[in-house]
Parts: sequence; structure tokens; C-alpha cells
Amino acid sequence: MPRRELGLGLIGLGTIAGGVAKVIQERGQTLAEQAGIMPVLRKVKVLPADLERPQARALGRSLLTTEDDEFWATPEIDVVVELIGGEHPALEYQEQALRAGKHVVTANKEVIAKHGVALLKMAGERGVHLRYEAAVGGGIPLIAPFRRDLVVNHVNGIYAIINGTTNYILSRMAQEKAGFAEVLAEAQRLGYAEANPHYDVEGIDAAYKLAILATLAFRSEVRPDQIFCEGISSLTARDFQNARELGYAIKLLAIAKQSGAGIEARVHPAFVASDSFLAQVNGVFNAVLVDGDLTGQVTFSGKGAGALPTSSAVVADILTIGHDIAAGAPPPAFFESLTHNVTPMADVVTRYYLRLNGADQPGVLAQIARTLGDHNISIASAIQKQTDIRAQIAEIVIVTHPAREQEMQHALGELRGLVGVREVGNIVRIED
Amino acid sequence: MPRRELGLGLIGLGTIAGGVAKVIQERGQTLAEQAGIMPVLRKVKVLPADLERPQARALGRSLLTTEDDEFWATPEIDVVVELIGGEHPALEYQEQALRAGKHVVTANKEVIAKHGVALLKMAGERGVHLRYEAAVGGGIPLIAPFRRDLVVNHVNGIYAIINGTTNYILSRMAQEKAGFAEVLAEAQRLGYAEANPHYDVEGIDAAYKLAILATLAFRSEVRPDQIFCEGISSLTARDFQNARELGYAIKLLAIAKQSGAGIEARVHPAFVASDSFLAQVNGVFNAVLVDGDLTGQVTFSGKGAGALPTSSAVVADILTIGHDIAAGAPPPAFFESLTHNVTPMADVVTRYYLRLNGADQPGVLAQIARTLGDHNISIASAIQKQTDIRAQIAEIVIVTHPAREQEMQHALGELRGLVGVREVGNIVRIED
Repeated sequence: MPRRELGLGLIGLGTIAGGVAKVIQERGQTLAEQAGIMPVLRKVKVLPADLERPQARALGRSLLTTEDDEFWATPEIDVVVELIGGEHPALEYQEQALRAGKHVVTANKEVIAKHGVALLKMAGERGVHLRYEAAVGGGIPLIAPFRRDLVVNHVNGIYAIINGTTNYILSRMAQEKAGFAEVLAEAQRLGYAEANPHYDVEGIDAAYKLAILATLAFRSEVRPDQIFCEGISSLTARDFQNARELGYAIKLLAIAKQSGAGIEARVHPAFVASDSFLAQVNGVFNAVLVDGDLTGQVTFSGKGAGALPTSSAVVADILTIGHDIAAGAPPPAFFESLTHNVTPMADVVTRYYLRLNGADQPGVLAQIARTLGDHNISIASAIQKQTDIRAQIAEIVIVTHPAREQEMQHALGELRGLVGVREVGNIVRIED
Repeated sequence: MPRRELGLGLIGLGTIAGGVAKVIQERGQTLAEQAGIMPVLRKVKVLPADLERPQARALGRSLLTTEDDEFWATPEIDVVVELIGGEHPALEYQEQALRAGKHVVTANKEVIAKHGVALLKMAGERGVHLRYEAAVGGGIPLIAPFRRDLVVNHVNGIYAIINGTTNYILSRMAQEKAGFAEVLAEAQRLGYAEANPHYDVEGIDAAYKLAILATLAFRSEVRPDQIFCEGISSLTARDFQNARELGYAIKLLAIAKQSGAGIEARVHPAFVASDSFLAQVNGVFNAVLVDGDLTGQVTFSGKGAGALPTSSAVVADILTIGHDIAAGAPPPAFFESLTHNVTPMADVVTRYYLRLNGADQPGVLAQIARTLGDHNISIASAIQKQTDIRAQIAEIVIVTHPAREQEMQHALGELRGLVGVREVGNIVRIED
């Protein structure tokens, strides 16, 4: 048993922090043998409201403080573990810790996505660690593999399902042929979706995680505000029905790939071939497919959230720091961030699924085809689907060949103006 | 650009070594920036026959030697990269390198499976690295995640498809409803199977890899000779047909799991639910499912072999060593190997699929059921399948509830003796 101790200061005491504290206290011995140093909780900064939580009771009052000053004044805190989430004041806590020369471990995707490169630089200058394995994919090893195991590769692309809430909703919509609102309500009842589902449903959470992965994979800062982001709320049972018939599943994909000189970074619903790996990822599971020039396609999957999986990643980061300290090794140097350009969405080229409701009369399909053709969008297949006899409305489903986003957007504008087109039902990009 | 150099000595110059040399030479700059030290090839030990290979020509004669003495006498070799494969003389080369205080990187599954713990101990005593990421799963990060990212977990079990040749053969048998011999011949034509397929087809290669993963996962030495090993050559088109109808796929699984006080470690064909993750892994792909007590099920998959994926893993190991040297960090201490017992196969409990050919006459099924019952094996479902009218033979397919292997083996002996039973067609374990 090593005599040396690794002092930990936790900020936040939600379910994840509770899980981390539990693991540290219950597995201290084993962890110490693995790291060569004994991780010990010195202080936990909580909100007054947290004091009544079971995890607070379990820790005992003396370990807890509601006062920042008392927290920072606690002696022998080597590692600050920030687990409150959100941008502020989490960012300020991390900066204060780094300025004080303390190592930082966090699960905070928003702070790392928006400020990761700057914080890593700060940590590098002060010779301390900033680790955030838990920020993406819960207990799935992702950050470490990118920083180490795959580092030899030129990454061609990342294709990821990294938001459990939306994947659960899409999986249920596919199974139950149910509508979005209905399934969202169910997900909220079951606790799979927040009361305010905005961050998940609109793809913002996925964009944060993609920014973190893309920045590592391409060694070039990719900020969330550079990522095109489209949510899943416009998808209908008709789209799932059509996708099925065309041999696709619908997933909210986070995609970052090399394209020419730049990087494409986008989050949006996509048709993926129903026999593909990503199509098989259902429910709250996350999955990341990395296409490396040496490895080829490598995939990682598992539960992307939850107190226990996430605490596994947080404690693994703590142990890595502990091991380096015990070994007297300096932390990894800050990686020099290259500056690839992020390709504007207007220039992105994909295939499209297009669902329109048109007047059930001759010539409408021709009008539509002409309009698309005018924008250099060629049609791979077009089907006039079900018809509402009474309203004389026909559903027209079109799959295009690869086309530029900008052209498609212009075409959509014109399609909406066509007399024969009653409604542009939906448009979904196809990734295969 | 760091001035310091990391001297490499390669042993072997097959396709993998050729890939490693290529990556080191073509990406030296980038790798140097990542590791903080410049990896440089100092000498490559080859066989006379290798001298005419393209990868030998590419390196140039001065880097090559056919003489052990000249190789070991080469100054400034920090890392010996052993890539000849097989137990001997690879083991002796690794030992000599470690004795000389050199770090060792290898892709040699046989040496690590049989001697890994002893070699790690040797490396630990001499304060050098022994790294073998490439020994399992080609370019899929597996060893590092077990040693670091998942180390906080108690691993409940590992379920792996880790031999591409057999997975290719089984995938084709499932698709084409073809027989084993036929598909094997095809795989050999296509270069997916060796002229001598013994190591792959009989599960020996998979057992080596499982020994390596299980030893890491349970921190307890699991030797290949402790692993029950059954190949795929007895599987027939009938078994795939029956599996499909019962809702299963057939895979060669490498399984290591906690069971009571001990560890189960076995390689054999298994029925897996057709909608499970492992059932979706087809062709030459490998996949490893790890069930951790904190993470839950985490999966890794990708191409398990090939020069480029494997060289990605080898070079990543070289960079890790380079980084530690540049940082002045000692290598990770040897992990103290616990000593769990490996459960004898006779005591393993699984469900079974049983295919028999019986006389098409009353009472046969009753005889079979009674025999199984005598050994405490209860039947979940029994179907009298197709009948060969002429020969008056009926195929009987039985799925059992969980039963002890030993009981099943005894029951099989008695079944073979029953007058009504013409043949025990096959028996396959069920994992769900």
C-alpha cells in the first residue's frame, strides 16, 4: 500500500459526483494499488440544497462546504473534480483551479466544447492535467483512444450517435410508428428526457460532444458555433415509414469529416442504411464510428450517460493523474492546435430524402423534377406514394444524387412556391 | 521539432513490419511532435529470404541485417519491435531485449498469451515497457482501454469475436446456406484463411487472444492451456437453418466471465440472439463486448487484422514509450497478478442446442427426454423437424434450460447408445 495520497476536491454533488465519491471511498485500496497513490476526498463544494441529499448524508457534514472560500482554502487538494455542468460558474471554477496549479478532471461537455483548447493551453503552461473523458460517451473510452491509441492515424471521419435521449426517441418512433411529441412525452415520464428537452432534441448536446471529438481527431479547434445543428422534432411517422421502405433507419448523427481542405462538422437527422452498424444502435446507447486511414473503421459503443458509467470515466482520469504524479511524470504537453477551416454548411454535399405533398394531378412531378434540375440536383428515385383521394393530395418521395446544400435550399424555396406543391413535408440528409 | 531520438530495432520484415517501417519513415515528423521524441529505425533483423521483398528494398540494404549479433550490437536501440510471430525464437528475442534493458513492443499473441505475465514481470524488474496492443484486435484499441480506461471496473465478463477468418466463414455459411468445407476453400482462395487453417478454425488463435484479454480484465493469469477450445468445423447448414428459425446467429465466441469464485474461459461456437450486437458483426470484423460493473456493456469493434490496422497499434505503443522517455517517466509498474481459479469446463453451466437424427417412430422423443431428465437437463423446446421418409429418419432439435457441461456430456454418451437415436448431429452452446 502506497503511503502517498492524492487529494481530491469535488465541486458539485449531483448523481455523478455522488457516484464518484462512492467509488473513491469504496474502492480506494484497489485504486491505490493500481495508481501507486491513494485517492482521498478532502472537500466537496455543494449548494445548500444539496446538503439534504442522500449522497451528502453518506459523505458526512465535515467533508462538505457551501462556501467557495472554504473549498479553496482546503489544504492538499491536488485535483479539482468539477461536476456541476453548464458553462458558468463551472468555467470559472476550472480556471481558478488551473491558476492555482491544481489538476482538473471534469465531465463538463459545454465548458470543454467552448473553452477546451484555451483551458488545455492554460493547463499546459502550468504543467497540470486537464482531463475530460467523461464529457463524451459516459463510460465509453473515447477521449483517451483519440489522444493515444488512434493518434498515428489521419482521421477521415467521425460518425456518431452521442445523445441517448434523441436516440431513444428515434428508436421508439421507429418501433411504434408513433409521432415525435407522443414519444417525447413518454421519454419524459420515464426520465430519459429532461422537462426542458431543448438541448437534447435540437442537437445542441450532440454538437458540444462533436466539437470535443473533432478537435481531438483533427488536432484543430472545432467550436460548437461552427457546427451546423438540426434537431429531430420535424420527423414524422411518415418519414420513418418511407425510410423503412427505402432500406434506411433514421438517426441523429454527429458527423465530422475531412472534406478537401476543410472539415465538415454537422449534427442532423440522417438516413443510414438499415444494415449498417449505426442503424443497429438503439435506445439510450451511444456509438462512435471512427474512420482512420490505417485502422479503417473502428467503433466504440455503450451507455453514454448515467451516474455509474460516467463515474467510471471520471475516476479513470483521476487515476491517470495519480499514476503520473506517483511516477513523477509531467502531464502531456498541450497539443498544438492546427487551424483547418470548417466548411460552411452551404458547401456540404450529401444525398437527400425529400417528402412533398403535391396536388394529385398530372405534371406535378415534372414541375418538381424540373425545379430540382434547375439547381443541378438529379433524382435517384421518385415515388408517388399514398394519395388522399378526398383532398386530392399525393405524397411524393424523392431520393436525390449527391447535391450541394445551398442548391437544395434554393430549390426548396422554389418548390414551396410551385402551385402543384401543397407542402414540403420534410427533408432528411442521407449518409451511406 | 525535438532533437532527441527514439532508436528502434525491428525483428522481422513481414507485411506488418513493412507497414510499421513505412509509417515510421513517412510520418516521423508528426509522430515526433506528438511524442516529443523522434522515432528512428536503426536496424531491421530479417531472414535471408526477406532481402528480396519489396519492403526490404524500400528500406535499403544498410538498415537490414540477417545476423543476430549485428542486430544486438547496433548502438542506440531503445525499443525492440518483435514482429516475427510464433513462440520461438520470438520469446527468446523478447527476453534478450528485456535483459538488455530495452523496451519491447510486439504483436505476438502466442508469446504474450503463454508468457505475458512472466515477461511483464521481467520488464517491471528492469524498468522497461513491454507493450502488445497489436496482439489482439489489430487496430482496435483494447489493451490500453483495459489497462487504463476500464480499470476502475470489476469486469463481469468479456464476450468476443476475435478471429476474422472464422467469423468470415460463419458469416458466409449463414448467408449462402453452404457447408463448412466449401466456404473454407473459398476463404483460402480469397486469402482470408491460411493454407493450414488449423489455428484459426480450431479456435486456438482466439484462445490466445482471450488469454491476453482475460489476464488483463481479471488481473489474474489465464493461460491458453486453461481455456476450453472448440472449433467450428462440425457446424453444418442444418445448424444455421435451425439457428435462424430459433432466432439466433452462430458465432465463434471467446468468453471470459466471473463465475462464483472462479473465472470461466472458453472458446466455442455459440448461438447468440440474432438482434444482439455480436450477431451483427460479420465478415472479417472483430468485436469485443466488455461488461463492467460501472460502465455496463461497452463494445469495441473493427478490422482485427491486416498490415495497416496492426501497424497503427504497434506505432501507438512505440509513441507511448517515446512519450514516457521524453517525459522522464518510469514505465507502469508490473501489476500484481491475482490468482483466480479457472473453472473446469465440466462445471460450466449453459443452455444447449441439440440436433439429433432419430428413427421416425413413436417413443423416440420420449426416450431422449427421459435420458436428458436423468441428468437433470430440462428441455425448453423440442421440435421434430424434417423427416427423411425413405430412410425413416426424423431430425429432432432440442433447446435445453441451463445445464452443467458434465451432465450434458454424460447424457450425450447415453443418447448415442439409444436404439432410437441414429446420430447426434451436433450440439452448440447458447449464450443469451
